[in-house]
Amino acid sequence: MSKLSQIRAYLNQEEANIAVFSDPVTVNYLTGFYCDPHERQMFLFVYTDDVPVLFVPALEVSRASAFLDFPVFGYQDAENPWKKIKTVLPTTESKKIFAEFDNLNVTKFQGLQTVFDGRFENLTPYVQRMRLIKSEDEIEKMMIAGNYADKAMQLGFDNISLDVTETDIIAQIEFGMKRQGISQMSFDTMVLTGNNAANPHGIPGTNKIENNALLLFDLGVVSNGYTSDMTRTVAVGQPDQFKRDIYQLCLEAQLTAQDFIKPGVTAAEVDEAARNVIEKAGYGDYFNHRLGHGLGMDVHEFPSIMAGNDMIIEEGMCFSVEPGIYIPGKVGVRIEDCGHVTKSGFEVFTKIPKELLYFEG
Amino acid sequence: MSKLSQIRAYLNQEEANIAVFSDPVTVNYLTGFYCDPHERQMFLFVYTDDVPVLFVPALEVSRASAFLDFPVFGYQDAENPWKKIKTVLPTTESKKIFAEFDNLNVTKFQGLQTVFDGRFENLTPYVQRMRLIKSEDEIEKMMIAGNYADKAMQLGFDNISLDVTETDIIAQIEFGMKRQGISQMSFDTMVLTGNNAANPHGIPGTNKIENNALLLFDLGVVSNGYTSDMTRTVAVGQPDQFKRDIYQLCLEAQLTAQDFIKPGVTAAEVDEAARNVIEKAGYGDYFNHRLGHGLGMDVHEFPSIMAGNDMIIEEGMCFSVEPGIYIPGKVGVRIEDCGHVTKSGFEVFTKIPKELLYFEG
Repeated sequence: MSKLSQIRAYLNQEEANIAVFSDPVTVNYLTGFYCDPHERQMFLFVYTDDVPVLFVPALEVSRASAFLDFPVFGYQDAENPWKKIKTVLPTTESKKIFAEFDNLNVTKFQGLQTVFDGRFENLTPYVQRMRLIKSEDEIEKMMIAGNYADKAMQLGFDNISLDVTETDIIAQIEFGMKRQGISQMSFDTMVLTGNNAANPHGIPGTNKIENNALLLFDLGVVSNGYTSDMTRTVAVGQPDQFKRDIYQLCLEAQLTAQDFIKPGVTAAEVDEAARNVIEKAGYGDYFNHRLGHGLGMDVHEFPSIMAGNDMIIEEGMCFSVEPGIYIPGKVGVRIEDCGHVTKSGFEVFTKIPKELLYFEG
Repeated sequence: MSKLSQIRAYLNQEEANIAVFSDPVTVNYLTGFYCDPHERQMFLFVYTDDVPVLFVPALEVSRASAFLDFPVFGYQDAENPWKKIKTVLPTTESKKIFAEFDNLNVTKFQGLQTVFDGRFENLTPYVQRMRLIKSEDEIEKMMIAGNYADKAMQLGFDNISLDVTETDIIAQIEFGMKRQGISQMSFDTMVLTGNNAANPHGIPGTNKIENNALLLFDLGVVSNGYTSDMTRTVAVGQPDQFKRDIYQLCLEAQLTAQDFIKPGVTAAEVDEAARNVIEKAGYGDYFNHRLGHGLGMDVHEFPSIMAGNDMIIEEGMCFSVEPGIYIPGKVGVRIEDCGHVTKSGFEVFTKIPKELLYFEG
C-alpha cells in the first residue's frame, strides 16, 4: 500500500475525509517532493474521495508540477493564501480535518480554520508512527548515509594536529564531504577538544587541539533525504589514566545497550541498560541526557530512548545509542552509533572502530 | 529602555501580565542567550510584576544560568514539561497571555493551555515590529555580516574555472569562511551555472561551470547573531548580447529601486520601482517573486518588499533588494544587496561591484 493510501485508510477508519500536511519533511516522505516554503505557505491536502492537492508558493509550481502526478496550485506573495486555497480545493466541507499539530504554528492553524469549518484533530502521532518503522528501502538509504558519516569521521581523524583549531577540522570535514557530493550535514558538525568536550552541548571554536586529552567528534550527513549521526571520542597524545577509564566506562555502557536491543524490550529498558553501567561505577550524575533518539528523514524522530518511555522496540525502528559522561573541567566522552532493529538484535549504520584510538600529539 | 522593559510596557498597555516566548531567535534578541531546544521545550516567561523565568532542557541549565541574571529552570527528558513549568513559575494566574503564534506549534500551544487558564493573544506582530527597526548597534553588526558576505563572494570569484562544478565552488567558499571563523552561513550557498541559474530556486549540483554563460552566486553569513544575504551574477567567457542585455536590465531595476528607497515611501512602491523597469522592457513575467525581504537575526524577517504591502518604510529598517529575471532555457540573472534605511536613503551592507564582471572561460 502506498503511503498516501495508508493515510486515506487511516482517514476512513477515523471517519474523516481530509488530511492537511504542513511539514516539508512529511510532504517529502509521502510524495518524494521536497520544498521548504520558509515563511510562505505550503500544504499537501489528501482526500479520501479525491486526488491530493499540493499548494505552494508560485515560484515552486513548475518544479512541483513536473514531479508530481496530481494537481499543484500556487499563490503569489501579494495574494491571500487562505482565500486562494478555498478556490482551488475540490471541497472544503468536512466534519473532521486531520493536521500535523507538531508542525503547524498557531497562525497557520488559524488560517486553516478560515478555510475549513470542521473540527481539527492531531495527525502528528499517526505520521510519527508511520515514520517510526522504516522499510527495507529506507534502511538501505540510512546505511548509505551511515557510510558517508564514517567517511566524514575519517576525514576528521586525518586532520588531527596540535597546530589546528576545532573549527579548522570542521572546515576540512565539511569541505571534503562537499567534494564527495554531500551538500548537507545532518546538523552543525561538532569537534570539541579537552574541557570543551566536557560540556554535552559545547560549541566548537578557535581552541587549538589539546595534547594528552580526549577529542570528541559528533557529525552526520544527509544523503538521499536520509540522515546519519555518530560520535567518536579519540585520544590525542597520552591522556591520563582517569580519562582513559571514563572512556572505557562509556564504551561498556554503549556496547551493553547495543547488545540489549531487540524486538520486545522497551525504550526505557534500553536506556536503563546503558545507564546502569555508568551508575554502578558512580558516574550516573554525569550522564545527564537520554540514551538516544530516533532518526530517519529528520535527525531527531521517534522513538526517544529514555526513562519513562514504555514504547516497545520493534523491527525496523532506527535510533541512536549515545551514552555520554561529562565531568566539568576534567573530561568529556560520548560514543554514538545509530542503527536499525533487526529480527533479533540491532545493526549499526556506522562502522568506525570504538576501541580508544590514539593520535599523535 | 531595555528590550525586556519594552515588552513589559506593552503588556501593561494591553492589560496583560505575562508574555511567553518560544522562538529561540526572539529569546536571543531579548536576552542575548541562544539555545535551540529542537523537539524539546524552551520558553522565556516575562512578567509585568516579577522577574523573568527561562525554562530549558536540563542540559542547558548551567550555560543559561551562567549567562542570565534571572532564574533558569530545567526539566529532564523523562519529566512532563508542562507540569514542571507550573511548579517553577511565580504565578500562572492570568486573564490574558501573550505568545508568539508564528513560532508556537499547536502541540506546544495546547501544552501551554494546560499551564495557564487565561485567553491567549498573538505577540508575533509586536515582536516583529520591535525587530523591524534596527538599532545603531544592530546595524553595525549587519555591516560586519555584510563585509563577510563580500569576502565569501570574492572567494567564489577566485574559484571560477571550467574544470570545477557548482558544488566544488560552494565547498571552497564555505571552507574559506570557516577558516575565517564563520561557523554558519545564512542559508545553503547557491552557485548556479547557465540554465540552472534560470530557475529562481535552482539547486546546485555537479554541473561543470559553463563557458560563455552567466554564473549566479547567492550567499550570506551569520556573524555575531546577525545575517547577511547577497547575490551576484557574473559572466564566464563571452555570454551573447541577449544575456548581457538581460543583465543590464536587471541591474537597472536593482539600482532604480535602491535609489528610490527613503523613509515615507511604501514597501509596495519600492517593489514597483524595480518591477516597472523590467515590465516596460517586456520581461515582467520573468520576474516572478517579490523584490525583497527584511533580515536581521533571521535571514527572512519583515518588511516584505512586495506588491500589496502598504507598510511605510522607516529609518532603521533592513531589507534586500533583489530583482531577478529567469527565462527558462535561456538565461537567469539576479542581483541582490541588503541595506538599511537611513534618514534620507538606503545604505547597502555589501560592496562588491555590480557592473557585469567577466571571468576567463
